[in-house]
Amino acid sequence: VNIEGVPPLEDLSKQIFIEGNTLKILDRRALPTKLRFMACTSLDDVAKAIKGMVIQGASAIAYAAAYGLALEAKRVYRKRAHETIPYLTGCAESLKMTRPTGEKLSRVLDKELITAKQAHERGEDLFRALVQFVEREMWRGRETAERCGRNAAALLRDGDRVLTHCYPGPAFIYALREALKEGKNLNIVATETRPYLQGAKLTTLAAKQVGVGVRLVTDGMPAYCMQQGVINKVLVAADRIAMDGSVANKVGTRLYAIAARYHRLPFYVLGYGGPDYLTRCGDDIPIELRDGEEVTVFENRRIAAEGVEGFYPAFDITPPELIDAIVTDAGVVYPPFNEGFKRIVTTVRSSAD
Amino acid sequence: VNIEGVPPLEDLSKQIFIEGNTLKILDRRALPTKLRFMACTSLDDVAKAIKGMVIQGASAIAYAAAYGLALEAKRVYRKRAHETIPYLTGCAESLKMTRPTGEKLSRVLDKELITAKQAHERGEDLFRALVQFVEREMWRGRETAERCGRNAAALLRDGDRVLTHCYPGPAFIYALREALKEGKNLNIVATETRPYLQGAKLTTLAAKQVGVGVRLVTDGMPAYCMQQGVINKVLVAADRIAMDGSVANKVGTRLYAIAARYHRLPFYVLGYGGPDYLTRCGDDIPIELRDGEEVTVFENRRIAAEGVEGFYPAFDITPPELIDAIVTDAGVVYPPFNEGFKRIVTTVRSSAD
Repeated sequence: VNIEGVPPLEDLSKQIFIEGNTLKILDRRALPTKLRFMACTSLDDVAKAIKGMVIQGASAIAYAAAYGLALEAKRVYRKRAHETIPYLTGCAESLKMTRPTGEKLSRVLDKELITAKQAHERGEDLFRALVQFVEREMWRGRETAERCGRNAAALLRDGDRVLTHCYPGPAFIYALREALKEGKNLNIVATETRPYLQGAKLTTLAAKQVGVGVRLVTDGMPAYCMQQGVINKVLVAADRIAMDGSVANKVGTRLYAIAARYHRLPFYVLGYGGPDYLTRCGDDIPIELRDGEEVTVFENRRIAAEGVEGFYPAFDITPPELIDAIVTDAGVVYPPFNEGFKRIVTTVRSSAD
Repeated sequence: VNIEGVPPLEDLSKQIFIEGNTLKILDRRALPTKLRFMACTSLDDVAKAIKGMVIQGASAIAYAAAYGLALEAKRVYRKRAHETIPYLTGCAESLKMTRPTGEKLSRVLDKELITAKQAHERGEDLFRALVQFVEREMWRGRETAERCGRNAAALLRDGDRVLTHCYPGPAFIYALREALKEGKNLNIVATETRPYLQGAKLTTLAAKQVGVGVRLVTDGMPAYCMQQGVINKVLVAADRIAMDGSVANKVGTRLYAIAARYHRLPFYVLGYGGPDYLTRCGDDIPIELRDGEEVTVFENRRIAAEGVEGFYPAFDITPPELIDAIVTDAGVVYPPFNEGFKRIVTTVRSSAD
């Protein structure tokens, strides 16, 4: 597929949307060579798509799951209206378990259940109410990402060579656009991010869409790049941020944070709407362990010797001591993060996200 | 292919050998699923096989190149006997440039040229003399690896969970065999080592052949494994060791050395025959930059967006400050390495390697 054919990656509403009774999800696994949408007609389809990495990223999976719950509400409501809310509550719990590390999935589903309950009590069209809820969430998520990206742009300097890991989502793209607008010349180095290659497939595509120079490296190359000056700072996203400033992000992030500190390079985190005030510290974040076969088999070909198992923790925790700043929609927070976060949570969080 | 069908990986003489006028090289890229040999009948074939990663590892490429030079000597000698030695000298120089980082390739080819000159002056059969030279080198290399492996086994404890990166070669296998013989229970964690996947393809196979537990991870996972206790020490090989203790090894090694220090885990290097006494420090080691397309294309499929370039430094340098011990055939050397190496070079090196 030609890059021009792919919708701007920062616009999730063109990657996850309802068409009639079907949820269409852009299959990120097929990028950058194929533009393919998966059609989901049931909650089970959506759960499988999330679990199977058709869609990924903390926000994207939250919206996909929320649409999935809307589809399920429509299906169930016709048959057993009075059982709908308890049933959807159970569905939401099972959706939360598809990817336990990020916290946005849980947060959006909990808010959706409240919306469902209210709509049900008022006798409103449940499906319509929930679709509107998701659209509103996506809109607010976009605004959050835009603000976060603008705040992040202030940390980028003309001539920066920025390492990122995995695909850091819309805020990263907004940060690049804003920095370009400010006349800054940037270059990105993207780690390929095995096993799902989000860095290779999505980050390089996003950089191309924005018009920023980008080079691809394997996940083992960042220390060389740091030593040689190929990169001079690191900017990654977060799937969950604890109140102490610990960050859960794609496995590998911890490695690059340690290496950045060793090479005295700044390590920044895109925190979107800020920390999860229900998560106290890194130890409180569950790390998703995925099937080891996703490591031993690549594109349907086995790469390890017979009988050898893979091990696949999907995320790791970067401790606050290695992080120089966490960028949120409400501003850039510096250590000590627990102090900075308290201000954000009390003054901004309730209205922003 | 069944694991039983693959010759023991520590035995290079079953992976690189002369059959008539042909050099047979086990194609490591096809492992672990296929057992395939590449037949080389010219120096050009051999250079391409080395450059194209059919065979890799500092010792293995040295032996393959040396056999290649023997084949070329045979071909040329018949036609222009008196020009043979200057011609072979030129050939050796171009072979050295195929993979510049490791030092064994240069060292073996230089010794081979001396052998060629002597054989030529004595009117001996040049081909036979050079083949015997390579066989002798392989035999001595095996003894060096065995001694190095036995010395390394002393650093392994019962219950160790050892991270290794790339394929650390015969000494690693001998170390595992010796540790098992000593009744130690070991488990290996192998990084897959993108882009050529030597960890996935070779290290897992070697561990299986030895009968040691092994799990495969991606190159981004070691920091998680260190934090969680999945591994408790690191043991890697070296393509070149400078006299100050700087180590060139597969790119990624530096990252894991930094992470091991952060997590207070020991980081050990298999130094085989010891340092290169002609290389003073890490800055004196040339880092091979390979074609970026080897990063952007994976198993014939493009993984990056159109127009995006890959960047592929094949090695990186780990500074001595991050290394707890370098294991050589003459014993284990601890920091300060320059002191320890001087003793080895003066007392052992001349006879051992």
